[in-house]
Amino acid sequence: SHDDDRIGRARVTDSPELLAYYEELAKYQAGALWTVANEIEPWYPQPRSVPVLWRYADLRPLVHKALPLVKADDAGRRVVMLVNPGRRELSAAVGLLYTGLQIMGPGEAMTAHRHQASALRFVHEGTGAWTVVDGQKLKVGPRDFAITPNNTWHEHGNEADDAPVIWQDGLDIPLVNTLDANFYEVHPELYQRPGPVTDSSLLSYGGNLLPYGVEKWTRPYSPLFGWPWEPSYHALCRLARATEGSPFDGVVMEYTNPVTGGPVMPTMSAHLQLLRPGQATRAHRHTGSVAYTAAKGRGVSVIAGHRFEWQRGDVFVVPSWAWHEHANLDQGEDACLFSFNDFPVMHSLGLHREEAHPDGQQPTTTA
Amino acid sequence: SHDDDRIGRARVTDSPELLAYYEELAKYQAGALWTVANEIEPWYPQPRSVPVLWRYADLRPLVHKALPLVKADDAGRRVVMLVNPGRRELSAAVGLLYTGLQIMGPGEAMTAHRHQASALRFVHEGTGAWTVVDGQKLKVGPRDFAITPNNTWHEHGNEADDAPVIWQDGLDIPLVNTLDANFYEVHPELYQRPGPVTDSSLLSYGGNLLPYGVEKWTRPYSPLFGWPWEPSYHALCRLARATEGSPFDGVVMEYTNPVTGGPVMPTMSAHLQLLRPGQATRAHRHTGSVAYTAAKGRGVSVIAGHRFEWQRGDVFVVPSWAWHEHANLDQGEDACLFSFNDFPVMHSLGLHREEAHPDGQQPTTTA
Amino acid sequence: SHDDDRIGRARVTDSPELLAYYEELAKYQAGALWTVANEIEPWYPQPRSVPVLWRYADLRPLVHKALPLVKADDAGRRVVMLVNPGRRELSAAVGLLYTGLQIMGPGEAMTAHRHQASALRFVHEGTGAWTVVDGQKLKVGPRDFAITPNNTWHEHGNEADDAPVIWQDGLDIPLVNTLDANFYEVHPELYQRPGPVTDSSLLSYGGNLLPYGVEKWTRPYSPLFGWPWEPSYHALCRLARATEGSPFDGVVMEYTNPVTGGPVMPTMSAHLQLLRPGQATRAHRHTGSVAYTAAKGRGVSVIAGHRFEWQRGDVFVVPSWAWHEHANLDQGEDACLFSFNDFPVMHSLGLHREEAHPDGQQPTTTA
Amino acid sequence: SHDDDRIGRARVTDSPELLAYYEELAKYQAGALWTVANEIEPWYPQPRSVPVLWRYADLRPLVHKALPLVKADDAGRRVVMLVNPGRRELSAAVGLLYTGLQIMGPGEAMTAHRHQASALRFVHEGTGAWTVVDGQKLKVGPRDFAITPNNTWHEHGNEADDAPVIWQDGLDIPLVNTLDANFYEVHPELYQRPGPVTDSSLLSYGGNLLPYGVEKWTRPYSPLFGWPWEPSYHALCRLARATEGSPFDGVVMEYTNPVTGGPVMPTMSAHLQLLRPGQATRAHRHTGSVAYTAAKGRGVSVIAGHRFEWQRGDVFVVPSWAWHEHANLDQGEDACLFSFNDFPVMHSLGLHREEAHPDGQQPTTTA
Ligand SMILES: [Fe+2]
Ligand SMILES: [Fe+2]
Ligand SMILES: [Fe+2]
Ligand SMILES: [Fe+2]
Ligand SMILES: [Fe+2]
Ligand SMILES: [Fe+2]
Ligand SMILES: [Fe+2]
Ligand SMILES: [Fe+2]
Repeated sequence: SHDDDRIGRARVTDSPELLAYYEELAKYQAGALWTVANEIEPWYPQPRSVPVLWRYADLRPLVHKALPLVKADDAGRRVVMLVNPGRRELSAAVGLLYTGLQIMGPGEAMTAHRHQASALRFVHEGTGAWTVVDGQKLKVGPRDFAITPNNTWHEHGNEADDAPVIWQDGLDIPLVNTLDANFYEVHPELYQRPGPVTDSSLLSYGGNLLPYGVEKWTRPYSPLFGWPWEPSYHALCRLARATEGSPFDGVVMEYTNPVTGGPVMPTMSAHLQLLRPGQATRAHRHTGSVAYTAAKGRGVSVIAGHRFEWQRGDVFVVPSWAWHEHANLDQGEDACLFSFNDFPVMHSLGLHREEAHPDGQQPTTTA
Repeated sequence: SHDDDRIGRARVTDSPELLAYYEELAKYQAGALWTVANEIEPWYPQPRSVPVLWRYADLRPLVHKALPLVKADDAGRRVVMLVNPGRRELSAAVGLLYTGLQIMGPGEAMTAHRHQASALRFVHEGTGAWTVVDGQKLKVGPRDFAITPNNTWHEHGNEADDAPVIWQDGLDIPLVNTLDANFYEVHPELYQRPGPVTDSSLLSYGGNLLPYGVEKWTRPYSPLFGWPWEPSYHALCRLARATEGSPFDGVVMEYTNPVTGGPVMPTMSAHLQLLRPGQATRAHRHTGSVAYTAAKGRGVSVIAGHRFEWQRGDVFVVPSWAWHEHANLDQGEDACLFSFNDFPVMHSLGLHREEAHPDGQQPTTTA
Repeated sequence: SHDDDRIGRARVTDSPELLAYYEELAKYQAGALWTVANEIEPWYPQPRSVPVLWRYADLRPLVHKALPLVKADDAGRRVVMLVNPGRRELSAAVGLLYTGLQIMGPGEAMTAHRHQASALRFVHEGTGAWTVVDGQKLKVGPRDFAITPNNTWHEHGNEADDAPVIWQDGLDIPLVNTLDANFYEVHPELYQRPGPVTDSSLLSYGGNLLPYGVEKWTRPYSPLFGWPWEPSYHALCRLARATEGSPFDGVVMEYTNPVTGGPVMPTMSAHLQLLRPGQATRAHRHTGSVAYTAAKGRGVSVIAGHRFEWQRGDVFVVPSWAWHEHANLDQGEDACLFSFNDFPVMHSLGLHREEAHPDGQQPTTTA
Repeated sequence: SHDDDRIGRARVTDSPELLAYYEELAKYQAGALWTVANEIEPWYPQPRSVPVLWRYADLRPLVHKALPLVKADDAGRRVVMLVNPGRRELSAAVGLLYTGLQIMGPGEAMTAHRHQASALRFVHEGTGAWTVVDGQKLKVGPRDFAITPNNTWHEHGNEADDAPVIWQDGLDIPLVNTLDANFYEVHPELYQRPGPVTDSSLLSYGGNLLPYGVEKWTRPYSPLFGWPWEPSYHALCRLARATEGSPFDGVVMEYTNPVTGGPVMPTMSAHLQLLRPGQATRAHRHTGSVAYTAAKGRGVSVIAGHRFEWQRGDVFVVPSWAWHEHANLDQGEDACLFSFNDFPVMHSLGLHREEAHPDGQQPTTTA
């Protein structure tokens, strides 16, 4: 029934008269809707993004190469962006999401700035990483997740003396630019003066109770800025004891704003999911774009009919409305995927739609 | 201070070594952030949209010309789109908003469909217009405002026998397409069977009390679908007796979802504003794009330093972050502007920002 | 199954040993739960309030008599309270709701004060009534509804020179006292200085659009303070054209806070309902107490099996969980009931429960 | 200025004429407001509750005595209630809150029931306590906090074989009864059949991430039912490293519903607070009633000018609007207070009010 020749779709044939009319319209910054209607009102989403997997084994040497090539203070931040072939003009990895691998050498520190775009981090390697967000210093280790909400001052560095830090940045830069709403400021003193307490958001908001008797948190993002790997993975394993999980995602949790129970930021959410040994999920599709990072174990995801095998550190993306399913290739150990997405945008704007694959799983072609 | 050579910005100079590095990155669907950082992290919004005014006197004959040129059933809908010179690839009038003038001849009726994009209507002329939204028939006359929320079945027509209807459509098609979330369906029976009561949303939700003892409305858009001109203008005039209004907009009201007090749909809001005789507002700018339609009187708006004179029926747009101010050019009568915008997107996503012009009004150049 | 001798209920028999134990407990400000458990954990609500109807024909002469008997400045306010026989110690008309008829002679004005209790008014007669709420003067006529939210400064009077005003006050005084949360203050200047615009909340918030570009209303009650009879009754008649209404209440609407779509105040809501000529509703019961005032026509309500006939001006009450149903006794004209209730308390605290009568209507005994 | 003879208060002197009038009013179930106005509109809250401290050393032997005296199946639950001398008719410990100490012998199990009143538990001693809430079995140990939200099926017991369990119940029975909204049901099968997983709410909701991909929790209370002592105290100690705390409460946290960030139930909230060695807080007062249980260490609280010394297990209450302040009497160890309160009622109904003592601390008399 997705037939553009049927009544209810635009099906006007060009004629000399019409072509003359179109030219006249163009003079007045106008056009005829029916010439573009079927294109701008598609039967279902037509993302230009394609599924891609970036192997960490490929990217890591490239990222290391950047270290001597550019100085931190010249690059701003030393990042290798992952660019979707269908989204080059937006520097997006998928949909309106940006991601990249950032490297900081031992002892390096970046200058402070802020922007309307929101950022998140997932650490790949290195033990010395720190970030200062609105004056609050937070230390992060491998597989920790942390956020830099929109318009917060931030800077970061690596205080280890032995090895570089590589972490993955996730930002909504393409979204905010597309919405004509980006702003950027360099910090007037180039560096913030962090408060005396490290990890204070973790200390204050990291339990199952909330601070009381102090000013209530009312900003539109989480007051908890970091989610270390250990307790997050522990929470996931505990949930795995209590629930079967989702047929499409295995046992999956959302990193959450503790004062609202909602996503950590208004434009991006992040998830951590566990596939039991040998588990293969069913396929589904939904609006919203997702960037995954393999955090533990090895597996395969089928996206729009293509198989993508992954192991720790690999990054891959699922465009909006693409069928996808995941499997753990190990029969003895669980496998974990970290991911971030623009689902909060879909939900806030009333654009969320989801469906299960009618056959449970997709027919596969090799990627 | 908006200097891209300063520390805190990317300022890496190309070298043979770097160029080779960039080529290597490209092989892996990757790139160096610092080559695009200053562009994708601008100091402030850089919309491609420009301010434009479309004169109704110019457009009206072009719209009438379409009537014999294409059949309704072939065109889907017979609409002259207003296309921003900077947004042609998206068919947008400004930002991610679409607008166009639709004409329906006496007795015409369009087929029913639905889509994930949200639509609104502002009637320019003709007395016979009707729309059926999710089975509910609503009649609309000149300067009435009505909505077609996302994913509601809709069809419309003109039941007058004397003259065509011209109304203005406003849609978020570019937004929903950019978010990879558009869907379209033709109604399985081509036409809906409206319920027996015309204007039932007006009858049910158009007072200052809400229906009780019936199922609570929980959809994310207004259960009130129409706002006729007379009571809306009356409300505006009454507010003008109680308040000075806004320094930037005169006396201004938002068309509102009565069950939430919020905007009528999650992606678009609409306003009606009144400029007192001779009033000239102060300039401000904010994120979010706006399309205005002159509904009464005549005036001038200064947008990004350009003067645009308007009278009833004219349409003009203000891109995100452009300075703008309005004046009523008549010393004896009030002037009214209808407008719609994507402010709900800015607010939901935490992207709203606003500032007053430091000098109150802008220096002007002729448009 | 509502049997207190069954397992799951307290069924301990007194013994000398137990009585001695109870005495010992009493010395330590303690007691044995099982001696009161069945009483404090009843099978269903056990209100002390009983259904009562107060005839306006009875009360009106009594209210008039108060005019010469006490001076306004001595009485504070000259009010005949309606006191439920089961709630005398709380001065409540039903549940934790207070109501009374207040009389103000021509030219009288009461002094200003404020309190933590919330108040509402429904005018019975007289054309000169006014109230000033937080500096805003509002005029009210017969059958108008108005609110005095908690902690707002208020004073009122009668500016007619011909006849007294009688209006009905509804307050949550018994609730707020029971919650140990009442406060009272006399205005430091005894009278407020109202702003220049009368009815400004009506002018600002009485339409289907909301003021924009001004500071957003964030208090926990409606910014609209008055609901005149004419448009309220008009809204009800329009709804009657669009909907069948509720089987239990006829066509019924809630006076609503336009910025939230919720009740006008956090502790009390008000309704207006229409019974079509000859209509008899089905019986239901729910938690929450209601005080009704007949606003138009004549009818009968059956409450807990007792018939109460009413005509304009009569007041009657329905205790929590009492079966009730209403009928219009006129075959040619509609009948209207105004009512106020504590439903917002039930909903906020998760205590709302409702059920339809299994037989549709109750067996009746004469009241 | 709290003078009842001033204008703005009722100050009518009885006269034979008035007394006759009052008698006439009484015949019609009516009364004159001015005869009770000053009493029902007090200058500030007039709770009948008084401050009380119950020593655990006194209560424990009394509670143990109940074990042989009444059978569990006869008593329903074997509880020694703590009854405020000013609230005997309501069986309340303070305001509209009930509390009591419940004892369960080794191997005992109580039958299942549910009620509209909400309950919470704080364990004093014993290692074998369990509760089944809506089919979910939860084990609780000393100083653990747990909830039984309104209308959930519940039963509990002690599966240890060595010693009784004593826990403290907190309920809003007096509130729900006063609101005429209590219901009670015995479980049709007398006992629930718990699901296979113990502590599943802890396993699912006890981390800083929330379950995803499963049906969203929409009930008006927390899906997390238990807060064990160890992580709760740990969270408190961590917060103490990050913040100074409140001047009135020391370092204080609220047990929180993880899906909303709000209180655990709509009528009652619970707090855990830490007083540093030697810390003495400043005095404040607020609407809302509080029942405290000393959970660790020893201290003194001054309430309405009276000193109450406490150590682990002691229970004491602060009536609404009473001045109160706390001190840790140990110079080397921290002290902790668990407490529960009706603050959610105050907030939902717009009745919260709070003020600091003008002198910082109260003048004291001995209790
Ligand atoms: Fe940044
Ligand atoms: Fe998915
Ligand atoms: Fe459409
Ligand atoms: Fe503007
Ligand atoms: Fe009052
Ligand atoms: Fe009812
Ligand atoms: Fe119970
Ligand atoms: Fe306190």
